[in-house]
Amino acid sequence: KNSDEISQILKYCNEEHLAVCPQGGNTGLVGGSVPVFDEIIISTSLMNSILDFDQVSGVLVCQSGCVLEQLDNFARSKGFLVPVDLGAKGSCHIGGNVSTNAGGLKFLRFGSLHGSVLGLEAVIANGDIIDCMSALKKDNTGYDLKHLFIGSEGTLGIVTKISIQCPVAPTSVNLAFLGLNNFQSVIETFQKARNSFGQVLSACEMVDLASIQAVQDHFNLNPPLEEFPFYMVVEIASSCQGHDISLMEAFVENLMQNDLVANAIVTNDSKQMISLWKFRENVPESLRQNYVYTYDVSLPLNNFYEIIE
Amino acid sequence: KNSDEISQILKYCNEEHLAVCPQGGNTGLVGGSVPVFDEIIISTSLMNSILDFDQVSGVLVCQSGCVLEQLDNFARSKGFLVPVDLGAKGSCHIGGNVSTNAGGLKFLRFGSLHGSVLGLEAVIANGDIIDCMSALKKDNTGYDLKHLFIGSEGTLGIVTKISIQCPVAPTSVNLAFLGLNNFQSVIETFQKARNSFGQVLSACEMVDLASIQAVQDHFNLNPPLEEFPFYMVVEIASSCQGHDISLMEAFVENLMQNDLVANAIVTNDSKQMISLWKFRENVPESLRQNYVYTYDVSLPLNNFYEIIE
Repeated sequence: KNSDEISQILKYCNEEHLAVCPQGGNTGLVGGSVPVFDEIIISTSLMNSILDFDQVSGVLVCQSGCVLEQLDNFARSKGFLVPVDLGAKGSCHIGGNVSTNAGGLKFLRFGSLHGSVLGLEAVIANGDIIDCMSALKKDNTGYDLKHLFIGSEGTLGIVTKISIQCPVAPTSVNLAFLGLNNFQSVIETFQKARNSFGQVLSACEMVDLASIQAVQDHFNLNPPLEEFPFYMVVEIASSCQGHDISLMEAFVENLMQNDLVANAIVTNDSKQMISLWKFRENVPESLRQNYVYTYDVSLPLNNFYEIIE
Repeated sequence: KNSDEISQILKYCNEEHLAVCPQGGNTGLVGGSVPVFDEIIISTSLMNSILDFDQVSGVLVCQSGCVLEQLDNFARSKGFLVPVDLGAKGSCHIGGNVSTNAGGLKFLRFGSLHGSVLGLEAVIANGDIIDCMSALKKDNTGYDLKHLFIGSEGTLGIVTKISIQCPVAPTSVNLAFLGLNNFQSVIETFQKARNSFGQVLSACEMVDLASIQAVQDHFNLNPPLEEFPFYMVVEIASSCQGHDISLMEAFVENLMQNDLVANAIVTNDSKQMISLWKFRENVPESLRQNYVYTYDVSLPLNNFYEIIE
């Protein structure tokens, strides 16, 4: 499949007044890719070619049906990484990530896809192909139409190609898994993490006890720490391993002395980091088993937990 | 002045068919803020209030007429920084930076304003006020109209308010000023800088000999190094001073051993860093004296210098 085929299908559907539902990896939790009634599903899964990679600039150009994890593995083989990461990475498509402006676990460090996506190609309802495929990091020629497609959930058109700025992959990653007694400590720990680590802080996520327990039950996992009302995952990524270990250890020690953190695991073992990340990454999937209605809501940090209490 | 006044002025001008030229700090080099004929100039310089700053999230909300340097000083007093920096910072307005999607010296680290600007308010030609003032880092509700105003050079409306995500300010900054013999060495040094420093690389800029000489002549400065065809400014910013000095020294030593760099100055003295940055920041202003026609052109890195040769 390619853009021209998508164009022909959409042109036909438009002329015949047939409803269309674009689908990528179909991993979205809010149901954007689930047809409501009689729609024709157009899947991008055959559009999975990597078209270009520039070793100097780190710009990756690919079709929208590429699976996120495969793209990331490709970028990492070149010393770079794809600046989106989420639990569904093994099956979600980059086109879907762009169409939904997916946030994910590295959002804190790399920001939204509005900052990383340099260009895209999309096919609109009448079959026209919109070409905004600039691969320049800085491009101010004319209105930047591509941003309308980012986060528009396929309502304006089907994204077919993407060019994305890949940052260099860190050679050193260290992780702390923390147990905390209240939400105020979570906020203070976040601020301390940002101030202590600055540019090398790559993730800082919170999970509450009920969510951790849902993951444990669903995946039959042992608890990483004893029971606390809140848990945090703090990750730093840089290029100097030896230095970062002592930095992370000093950080956690300081938190414990200040009674912000009750217990902690600090590690740079990649297997252990993957298993600890599971307790955050798999929260949405575990909750789904209990017929929870799924939202994707953003709240100001200070008032974040009030809505639950 | 405030948004309502701008709205009334634009409404009147629209009804009377009067041409309007929005002007911020009037520092743009490509003439976007210079009236062509009989336009009415609407200046934002009285709209210079900081409206809000959230210490937890680092989100700054202000009017569009705030001078960039004053905003940055304010953010730094809170432990954060404004993720745009350019030679004209002492007089350019944040509204103009947003309207032109200004790149600047920290572009490599913080990316374009499409990634940093969380919300904006703009007044369009008929006087309507468009409110996209979300202050959430992640906000996927509806189409993201604000991106159309970013980089539209005031042609769609006058930006009146901005909310911007400020990253935490680094406590340690180290700079290397390098002399190189050819453009290939510049490209290779850029790649090595990115691989060595990863997340803490905050700037990596190139200046050629003719540009350096223009700055020297225009500002009557002594040359920082002897004559080379190319110079580079490499800056790293993090939160561990002691460690970064040795990192930068080892980096430069390695470049010299590999014959990529012919001579170098390494420093973390803030006065010396400011005076070295002058040789890059003031290139556009110095060239203007010679009646050079000014462009703002972006080129792929690999072919960057061919156009000059």
